[in-house]
Amino acid sequence: MPIDFHLSPSQEGTYQTARSLARNLLLPSRETYLQYPPNSPLRFQSTQPTYTAAVSTGLLKGQISPAHGGTGGTLIESAILVEECYSVEPSTALTIFATGLGLTPLNLAAGPQHAEFFAPFLSGEGSPLASLVFSEPGGVANALEKGGKGFQTTARQDGDEWVISGEKMWATNCAGWDFKGCDLACVVCRDVTTPLESGQEPKDKVMIILVTRADLDRNGKGSFEVLRHVATPGHTSVSGPHVRYTNVRVPSKNVLCPPGQGAQVAFGSFDGSAVLVGAMGVGLMRAAFDAAIAFAKRDDRGGAVPLLERQAFGDLLSGVKMQTEAARALTWKAAHAMENGPGDYDARRELALAAKVFCSEAAVKACSDIINAVGITAYDLDQPFSDLLNTAVVLPIFDSGNVGIRRRHMQQLMLKPTYDAWAATYGPSVSE
Amino acid sequence: MPIDFHLSPSQEGTYQTARSLARNLLLPSRETYLQYPPNSPLRFQSTQPTYTAAVSTGLLKGQISPAHGGTGGTLIESAILVEECYSVEPSTALTIFATGLGLTPLNLAAGPQHAEFFAPFLSGEGSPLASLVFSEPGGVANALEKGGKGFQTTARQDGDEWVISGEKMWATNCAGWDFKGCDLACVVCRDVTTPLESGQEPKDKVMIILVTRADLDRNGKGSFEVLRHVATPGHTSVSGPHVRYTNVRVPSKNVLCPPGQGAQVAFGSFDGSAVLVGAMGVGLMRAAFDAAIAFAKRDDRGGAVPLLERQAFGDLLSGVKMQTEAARALTWKAAHAMENGPGDYDARRELALAAKVFCSEAAVKACSDIINAVGITAYDLDQPFSDLLNTAVVLPIFDSGNVGIRRRHMQQLMLKPTYDAWAATYGPSVSE
Amino acid sequence: MPIDFHLSPSQEGTYQTARSLARNLLLPSRETYLQYPPNSPLRFQSTQPTYTAAVSTGLLKGQISPAHGGTGGTLIESAILVEECYSVEPSTALTIFATGLGLTPLNLAAGPQHAEFFAPFLSGEGSPLASLVFSEPGGVANALEKGGKGFQTTARQDGDEWVISGEKMWATNCAGWDFKGCDLACVVCRDVTTPLESGQEPKDKVMIILVTRADLDRNGKGSFEVLRHVATPGHTSVSGPHVRYTNVRVPSKNVLCPPGQGAQVAFGSFDGSAVLVGAMGVGLMRAAFDAAIAFAKRDDRGGAVPLLERQAFGDLLSGVKMQTEAARALTWKAAHAMENGPGDYDARRELALAAKVFCSEAAVKACSDIINAVGITAYDLDQPFSDLLNTAVVLPIFDSGNVGIRRRHMQQLMLKPTYDAWAATYGPSVSE
Amino acid sequence: MPIDFHLSPSQEGTYQTARSLARNLLLPSRETYLQYPPNSPLRFQSTQPTYTAAVSTGLLKGQISPAHGGTGGTLIESAILVEECYSVEPSTALTIFATGLGLTPLNLAAGPQHAEFFAPFLSGEGSPLASLVFSEPGGVANALEKGGKGFQTTARQDGDEWVISGEKMWATNCAGWDFKGCDLACVVCRDVTTPLESGQEPKDKVMIILVTRADLDRNGKGSFEVLRHVATPGHTSVSGPHVRYTNVRVPSKNVLCPPGQGAQVAFGSFDGSAVLVGAMGVGLMRAAFDAAIAFAKRDDRGGAVPLLERQAFGDLLSGVKMQTEAARALTWKAAHAMENGPGDYDARRELALAAKVFCSEAAVKACSDIINAVGITAYDLDQPFSDLLNTAVVLPIFDSGNVGIRRRHMQQLMLKPTYDAWAATYGPSVSE
Repeated sequence: MPIDFHLSPSQEGTYQTARSLARNLLLPSRETYLQYPPNSPLRFQSTQPTYTAAVSTGLLKGQISPAHGGTGGTLIESAILVEECYSVEPSTALTIFATGLGLTPLNLAAGPQHAEFFAPFLSGEGSPLASLVFSEPGGVANALEKGGKGFQTTARQDGDEWVISGEKMWATNCAGWDFKGCDLACVVCRDVTTPLESGQEPKDKVMIILVTRADLDRNGKGSFEVLRHVATPGHTSVSGPHVRYTNVRVPSKNVLCPPGQGAQVAFGSFDGSAVLVGAMGVGLMRAAFDAAIAFAKRDDRGGAVPLLERQAFGDLLSGVKMQTEAARALTWKAAHAMENGPGDYDARRELALAAKVFCSEAAVKACSDIINAVGITAYDLDQPFSDLLNTAVVLPIFDSGNVGIRRRHMQQLMLKPTYDAWAATYGPSVSE
Repeated sequence: MPIDFHLSPSQEGTYQTARSLARNLLLPSRETYLQYPPNSPLRFQSTQPTYTAAVSTGLLKGQISPAHGGTGGTLIESAILVEECYSVEPSTALTIFATGLGLTPLNLAAGPQHAEFFAPFLSGEGSPLASLVFSEPGGVANALEKGGKGFQTTARQDGDEWVISGEKMWATNCAGWDFKGCDLACVVCRDVTTPLESGQEPKDKVMIILVTRADLDRNGKGSFEVLRHVATPGHTSVSGPHVRYTNVRVPSKNVLCPPGQGAQVAFGSFDGSAVLVGAMGVGLMRAAFDAAIAFAKRDDRGGAVPLLERQAFGDLLSGVKMQTEAARALTWKAAHAMENGPGDYDARRELALAAKVFCSEAAVKACSDIINAVGITAYDLDQPFSDLLNTAVVLPIFDSGNVGIRRRHMQQLMLKPTYDAWAATYGPSVSE
Repeated sequence: MPIDFHLSPSQEGTYQTARSLARNLLLPSRETYLQYPPNSPLRFQSTQPTYTAAVSTGLLKGQISPAHGGTGGTLIESAILVEECYSVEPSTALTIFATGLGLTPLNLAAGPQHAEFFAPFLSGEGSPLASLVFSEPGGVANALEKGGKGFQTTARQDGDEWVISGEKMWATNCAGWDFKGCDLACVVCRDVTTPLESGQEPKDKVMIILVTRADLDRNGKGSFEVLRHVATPGHTSVSGPHVRYTNVRVPSKNVLCPPGQGAQVAFGSFDGSAVLVGAMGVGLMRAAFDAAIAFAKRDDRGGAVPLLERQAFGDLLSGVKMQTEAARALTWKAAHAMENGPGDYDARRELALAAKVFCSEAAVKACSDIINAVGITAYDLDQPFSDLLNTAVVLPIFDSGNVGIRRRHMQQLMLKPTYDAWAATYGPSVSE
Repeated sequence: MPIDFHLSPSQEGTYQTARSLARNLLLPSRETYLQYPPNSPLRFQSTQPTYTAAVSTGLLKGQISPAHGGTGGTLIESAILVEECYSVEPSTALTIFATGLGLTPLNLAAGPQHAEFFAPFLSGEGSPLASLVFSEPGGVANALEKGGKGFQTTARQDGDEWVISGEKMWATNCAGWDFKGCDLACVVCRDVTTPLESGQEPKDKVMIILVTRADLDRNGKGSFEVLRHVATPGHTSVSGPHVRYTNVRVPSKNVLCPPGQGAQVAFGSFDGSAVLVGAMGVGLMRAAFDAAIAFAKRDDRGGAVPLLERQAFGDLLSGVKMQTEAARALTWKAAHAMENGPGDYDARRELALAAKVFCSEAAVKACSDIINAVGITAYDLDQPFSDLLNTAVVLPIFDSGNVGIRRRHMQQLMLKPTYDAWAATYGPSVSE
């Protein structure tokens, strides 16, 4: 099939479903949560009914791959869904998508023995939360370098059990609706059963262990604690608190990735989410543009013509429009390549990283440019512009930060002897 | 005297006083106001004791020119003061500086007959608030163009009185501590006593009328109303509400600038404040840099070396450092030129506009870059980074927005036949 | 068909043909033309054999639409071709593509009566040059505004003939190989047979007249003159001189677009070429990236590791990589939308404009960033970097300049009441 | 003395002298050298009479510090001189200033025994060329790191002589007018008399040896060879060829900096030149702005109003104006601080680095923006814009490249425990 940008019927269906979901389900939740103080536990909890309703529409099942019994579609469809939701109500949306991220390590690495962990998310009932529990209070960007400290959350094998201890932070959904633990946590941790041997690198010890709410409950009081709810300037209904695991014992069957395999699966999960962060950026830019052009058509700042007739204003707007179009095209390209090639995984992955970095930084700049164009009205919290900026500002720094991790991964890819710059577009290059 | 960047003893004194003020007076007020909801009237009111204390140190008298009995120093000294305060606690500071802006039209245009209006601000007692009441809900950027609508707040001469009606918004301090009106408002309005004649332009009708709290009290209930307190993402202790004047009658002696002279004095006031917005940007960039470098020296994101050793991090920081240095140097240049030349007023003014636009936009970008460098930790409201961004983001759009007004003024200057690009540096050019 | 980024067999064929053409035909021509002084007539003329060879491969026929007997493929195929050639040898390539631009008005507007004008370009023989003769010495960016001067090249009807006079500049190929006129010129001019009537705008007088070499020869000496060959920093084998038409008489059948229809066809031609300028930008960025990464893998600037291991270097390179990927994705999106929708012509056209502006400006920045990364070696003309910059620098300013024309067209589209921002992606919006 | 931006009489004198020099001496030389092919040896040689005339006005003596018998003024005066010359004719100017750079190591490190080396440059006669011979074909950015290769040009002590061998490149003036060697070369090289000992770093071996033309002549044919004249896109009358020293023997008295002291003096020389590169950037931006505004006042691109009335054009111009003003203010600040403080050398040096990096990158962007504003006319080599860009493009990459060296030095300063960010403005910080 040739290069094509038309939505197929299935993609069109995703688009229409997403529009309805965003406007009819997510947007009303905003009215509700705004009644509670920003970042308060109550604000997060107020979104549970919306989350439950979204689950009942199959949204979680749709984030599980068919290989595991889900109805997950293509990455392009996910990108369409994410853009649409982020253009309308990003905060409630993130809680939903974060469960998707929490399930991604299972999508990538689960064997038949892990089927039970998928079950609650396949049921279409309730409001189960999953979480990829990766980040730590002191950061992890350099933890896996030679000489790095590795993850500070540790796991120790003790007979047929693993014992997990350590602090995590920023893992969306990790504490569940009642802050006693989410339904399923993919905890990225470091095996300390034996010390790092000569020749080993920190990543050789990285593993992923599944911790369910039942595991935490069984371990009892004090095994999992929320140390602090983190207040943030945007995404104010989202929960990703600073938490501590203390000697949480789980059975061996909970090991999703044994030592040495955890880093690849964790980063593989972020490769997929990279594309979706690209779509988040597109959604925010689109919302900012739409709000600004509506403003510019009704407002004249006292002049004789609508604001949009001013070149200085128009150029800021068209600049954002172009960035948005480029960002979406890149995101789609990356989504398609990740699943269909051409090129090997490294080549495809480079596009995913590019979508994350490019779109996230473009989104921050776009919101800032739009604010400058709109002028002082944009400083009014009754207008959407400030919230858009404060939502966008996390895109470059969460889901593995651009400067510390994403750009470094791009550099590592370029450094490989097998690097083939345009393989994800034209196929592997032929030496001449 | 040759080009020199050393602080004179007087400037050094300003610097030391400012440091003390910022750390010992302004900073503690933040602890207090943070106890109240953002942008709530209570938050603003909680800063009144700090304001009173600042008044008692002579801070208001210091914003009145010696010609009118004040102790106002040079614009460079003001820039030093503003930078220092903004690097520590911008929100409380803005309330103070806004009174300075409110007094500037008097500094520029007051005659002997206006001495009584200065009096409360010269006393060093109480907490009198002044306000330059300029912006309107629908914006004023293009209101003075040919064919523009002019100011929507109007004044009509009726015998020996003027009658003022209309809505204003964003005028810092305009409603006073109790929201019944500030002590002194310089209301920029349009004379509608007679209609615009052929050949006249909107600016020919612009006037400035002084409205004191006593005037409002005398006019009685309903003459001045706060329609809405505006919630803003930064400067959360500041008050600049949407207000309405309804048939406020003041005596003719309250006319500071008769019709046709108001625009020049209003814009002249903003020429001075332009330099100070430059200093605000410098202060914010400096604070962001200082916070980031402190973070980078204590943090390693799990790696073997401090974060600052990473080139990608270092380049973002040094980029901000350079911008800050350039911004301060430009601000000082503009401050010096405004008062000392060389060049005519147009040439000097261009530098003031440049300081405003350049530093304000640099500050937003700097805060954004610093957030990207710091990473996810910057999304934690316990850290200063998000607040710095949300404070900086108003600099390009308040105090006459860059896109709609400041850049336009720069363009108008360039268009003049007498434009002499480098006169404010090397003196008027000599034709060869 | 769903969104897809795989090259179809036909597109793959275009890619392979383009690679071969670029490397085997265009690249060797560079060796030849570099023997002549930059921008000398001889340098341009030295590319004629290469042009002839390209013609014989069907390259001109491939730029004529099947409706007119050509073998022109899709715009995406053209984009693939242009990217490939521009990544290898842009200067010789431009001469070929400029003939394509010269034929575009005919592709868009020719009737059966114009078949004879296509003939030489369908033959696959010789080296016929076509040219869209649009730009003028004083510029045309604002000429069609209300109150604008209109085109300064005029046409006057005289019986069954039109008489053309005026100066043109920058029209690639317009003077032909011997500087006595190209084989086919689409001269955009202003009908001055009758004066502009009240209510008419300058564009109501714009027409396009075909002028062949035979026409010029018939008109005799002095009817067409090259006033100056323009030396340029890049594209040094290209010819687009300052020329003058003096009372050139052509028969009425040569009128391609009668008065009032010329502007639309001319701008329509530039809508298509906008996408191809996007592809030019992609090709140049790609070439700059490829050259820089090759340098960074073999060079260490005296250090212990390859240059590419330095983060500061790596970030500049990955930044260019991301821009290139985004630029190509946007260009393909625009190429597809222009021919397939969704959305009406305005919506599609906006994407074409976006591709032109975004990619052209990105290319200049990319070349500049690459130069900074490579360091002083990039200032050596034996390296490709400076030539890439000097080639890229024209992309934003030729083919209708971004600031004066392309951005203005984007603004005009946004101003339309029917503007529908995302229709070229998701189809016309449905009001809710 | 307080902060002041007025030129003192001495500075004003420098300014006037510089204006006269630039217009009356340098500019005419351009007419002459343009008659020769770009970068041809003849082009460089054609500037010798101008250089001789400049010498006779005391320009070389003015680059030697009074401590060594010169009349060198302050760094601010040098910045004024450099800006002025670069705004008029940068290429011829660089040849002159490069002699200044070649003399700087002596200004910094010469003892009484080196007086003879200054003599030709104090005489005010002839056309003596000096050169700081630093860069090497493979680059030196990382050569002094731990594990780096060090300089590839080596010196070996042999009795009372040193024997120098190795290749250099990009050292302006190093080959002299006849390409047999300049009058005085400060050759930065690596002592290989004994191998690097454990605990030593590459910089411990760096030395600077003076090599005069007499030395080269005495060593005879083959001791100094020009391997290649480097063609460059700008500065086309400048000579900085690829050269080779082969067993050049010089007496011990020629050692300016013994092993271990060379790097500090070389980098110290570049600290001073950093400020002057800042001034070069200012000069180029100013010239680009002046040319663009002149164009914009006389040109209307066919419209009804001058181009400057268009907001899109005006904003590009005012953006360049602001950058130029900020760049000059920063350059002056750095120049003043380097010689007067406050702050220790590190604090002062950071400003010099900032001036180099900020102004050089701003200049490239400014020239690029101006080209976009002017439009296609800027692609005409008869206009100054392309030459300005091609001149500016070297500023970030020569005189120690920004990415590889200057930014690294900034990072190293920030990493020091004693780093005190604002000491060069407000003096050493006081802990509170």
